Amino acid sequence: MMSELHINLSESLKSKPASDALGFGKYFSDHMFIMDYSSEDGWHDARIIPYGPISLDPSAMVLHYGQEVFEGMKAYRTPLGEIAMFRPDMNLKRLNNSCERISIPQVDTEFVLEAIAQLVRIDQEWIPDGEENALYIRPFIIATEAALGVRASKQYMLMVILSPVGAYYPEGIHPVSIYVEEQYVRAVRGGTGEAKTSGNYASGIKAQEIAKTKGFSQVLWLDGKQHKYIEEVGSMNVFFKVNGEILTPALTGSILQGVTRDSVITLLREWGYTVVERVISIEELFEASRQGLLEEAFGTGTAAVISPIGSLSWGDKNTEISGGVTGELSQRLYDSITGIQRGKLADPFNWVYTVK
Amino acid sequence: MMSELHINLSESLKSKPASDALGFGKYFSDHMFIMDYSSEDGWHDARIIPYGPISLDPSAMVLHYGQEVFEGMKAYRTPLGEIAMFRPDMNLKRLNNSCERISIPQVDTEFVLEAIAQLVRIDQEWIPDGEENALYIRPFIIATEAALGVRASKQYMLMVILSPVGAYYPEGIHPVSIYVEEQYVRAVRGGTGEAKTSGNYASGIKAQEIAKTKGFSQVLWLDGKQHKYIEEVGSMNVFFKVNGEILTPALTGSILQGVTRDSVITLLREWGYTVVERVISIEELFEASRQGLLEEAFGTGTAAVISPIGSLSWGDKNTEISGGVTGELSQRLYDSITGIQRGKLADPFNWVYTVK
Ligand SMILES: Cc1ncc(COP(=O)(O)O)c(C=O)c1O
Ligand SMILES: Cc1ncc(COP(=O)(O)O)c(C=O)c1O
Repeated sequence: MMSELHINLSESLKSKPASDALGFGKYFSDHMFIMDYSSEDGWHDARIIPYGPISLDPSAMVLHYGQEVFEGMKAYRTPLGEIAMFRPDMNLKRLNNSCERISIPQVDTEFVLEAIAQLVRIDQEWIPDGEENALYIRPFIIATEAALGVRASKQYMLMVILSPVGAYYPEGIHPVSIYVEEQYVRAVRGGTGEAKTSGNYASGIKAQEIAKTKGFSQVLWLDGKQHKYIEEVGSMNVFFKVNGEILTPALTGSILQGVTRDSVITLLREWGYTVVERVISIEELFEASRQGLLEEAFGTGTAAVISPIGSLSWGDKNTEISGGVTGELSQRLYDSITGIQRGKLADPFNWVYTVK
Repeated sequence: MMSELHINLSESLKSKPASDALGFGKYFSDHMFIMDYSSEDGWHDARIIPYGPISLDPSAMVLHYGQEVFEGMKAYRTPLGEIAMFRPDMNLKRLNNSCERISIPQVDTEFVLEAIAQLVRIDQEWIPDGEENALYIRPFIIATEAALGVRASKQYMLMVILSPVGAYYPEGIHPVSIYVEEQYVRAVRGGTGEAKTSGNYASGIKAQEIAKTKGFSQVLWLDGKQHKYIEEVGSMNVFFKVNGEILTPALTGSILQGVTRDSVITLLREWGYTVVERVISIEELFEASRQGLLEEAFGTGTAAVISPIGSLSWGDKNTEISGGVTGELSQRLYDSITGIQRGKLADPFNWVYTVK
C-alpha cells in the first residue's frame, strides 16, 4: 500500500464560529483529507488540501446506486493540552467491515488513522473550547466512476472532513421521548443494517419526521421481520436496566456495532453489572415496565454519548421511565465515558489515542 | 410552480461513439437539465446547460445519508423520424412516489416532462441508429445541503442526463441463468423497496458479485422476512408462465412498480391470458417445474425490456426453463413492446409520447 501523504495548506484560514453556538455538522475546518482509488492503482494520491467543493461527474455512481460508507468519531483537547481521540481503531475497522458489505475496496486502516491524526493536528485550532464541545471527524468513501449500471464502481474517493460540534442536546443530558415505530423499518437481517452506509439513513428519515410531528424526539426501530424485537433508537444503540440487570439487543446482523455500545458494556461489566446481549421484544419491555422493573433506558452513540430515554410510546401504550429524569446509571456512564474521552479520568482500557 | 426554462447551449459538441459499441451508460450527451430546490424558493432555476461535472460540498447530504431518488426511461427514433418516449408519465409519477418515501419535495411532473422533451430535442443527434439502440434518460434528485446530521435536506438538485445505449444483451435476447439468493436481501416491507432510491441498489451489489463468481447472470431476490417468496430478478420485475397462466409477484410494498411490468400485464390480458398478481413461493415454483408446468420465466425492465430466464438455481436444486431457449411468449412480448416503443407497431394503449 501507499504511504506518502502530500500536504497543501490553505492560504487563507476561515474565521471560527463561536463555541457556544456550534450545533452539529454546520461548520467545517480549513482542510480535508482525500485519497483516490482506481482498480489499476489501488488507493493512491493521499493528500491534505484546503477544504472545498469536490467535482463529480453527474453520472458518478454514488449519486445513483449509493455505494458509500462512512464513519463518525471525535477529537478532544485534554486538560494537558494534548489532542485525544476515542478508539479510532474501532471506527476504522468498522469502516472496512462496511466496505466489505457494499463491495468497496478495503483501506489500510493504519495509514488512514495517521492521515486523520495529521489532519486534526493541522486543524487543531478547530477543536472547540467548552465542556461538551468536540471536533467531529467524518471519514467517508464514495463511488466516483462516471458510468450508469448497477455494479461495483472501479473508482472511489475517501475523504475526511472535520466539524466543530456542540453538545448534542444543548440543554445538556436529559431524557427524551421515544416513539416505537411499527410500520417503517430501518434494516433487516441480510440487508445492510450492520454497515454504516448512506441508504440506511435515507430509509429512516420519514419515520423520524412523523415521530417529530407527533411530538417525539426519536424513533425506536423494531426488527424488519416481525416488528417485535428492539433494534436501535434513532442512530444509537439502546440499553435497558431491568430489575438490576442490563439488557441490550444482540448483534444479529441488522444492528450497527457501536463503539459507544462496546465501551458501555465493558464499563458496566467492570462495575459488576450483569450485561445480557439478547433478543428483546418490545412486549417484554412494556411488561417489565408494568411490573415496575424497567429502571432505566438509554441510547448510546458518538454524537450524544449517552441519551437517557424518559418515555416510550408504542401504539396506544405509553410508559414513563425513571420518573422522566436522567437515571443514576445513565449519568454515571455519561460522566465516565466523557471523562475518559476528554482525558479527565484515568483510561484503564487504553481507549484513548493521543495525537502526537 | 416555476415554468421558465433557461437554455445555454454548448459551444463545442463532443464526437459521438460508434453505434455498434455503445454498451450501457458509458457515454453522455452534450447537455443536461438541472433544477435547484431550496426550502425558501421551492424548485427554481430550471436550466439546460452543457454536460459537465457538478460541484458539491464534501458535506452534501446525499454523500452521507443517501437522500436520492432516480428514474430510467428511453427515447427512440421512429421510422417516421419522430422522437418517441415510452410512458414517461409513469416514470415521473413514480419519481414523486419515491420522493415521498425519502422525504424529498415533489416535482411538477408536467414541467419536468417538458424539460426532458426539450433536452432530448436539443440532443436528438445522440439518439443512436441501430435496431436495438436507444437514448437512455436518467432523471435523478440529490440532497445538496452542506451539513451533517440525519434529517431531510433543505436543498436539492434535480438533474437529467442522457446516454446513448446499446442492446442490454449484445448477443440479442437470450435466456440467462439466475441464482436464487437466500442470504442477502434487497428490501423488506416497511423499508424502501418500493422507491427507486440509491440505497436499494448498493445493498444488492454484493449478492450480484457472488452470483457472477458462481457463473450466474443475475440474482433472484426473495422476501426479507421469510426468504421464501419471490420478489424481483436483478433490477427487473419477474413473470412466470405456469400451466398456461401468468404469475407475477403482487406489489406488496417491497417491489418496484415497473413500467414494463404494467405494460406486460396489460398486453397479456389483451391477448386473453390470465395474469395473477399474488405471493409466489420459490418452493411452489420448483414444484411446478418438477411437474413440467413451468413453461416460461422472464424479467421485465426498461434496460432489457424482456429478459428470458433459462435456468434457476436454488440451494442444491437446479431447474432448466423452456429448454434453455427463449420462450414463445417472451419473444412475442419483446417484439410487441419494442415494436410499440419504436413506433413500428400500432400503439393501442396510447403509451407513446411523441417529442414535438
Ligand atoms: C445506526 C447507528 N447505530 C448506532 C450508532 C452508534 O455507534 P457509535 O457508538 O459507534 O457512534 C450509530 C452512530 O454512529 C449509528 O449510526
Ligand atoms: C429494482 C427494480 N425493479 C424493477 C425495475 C423495472 O422497472 P421498469 O420496468 O419501470 O424499468 C427496475 C428498473 O427500473 C428496478 O430498478
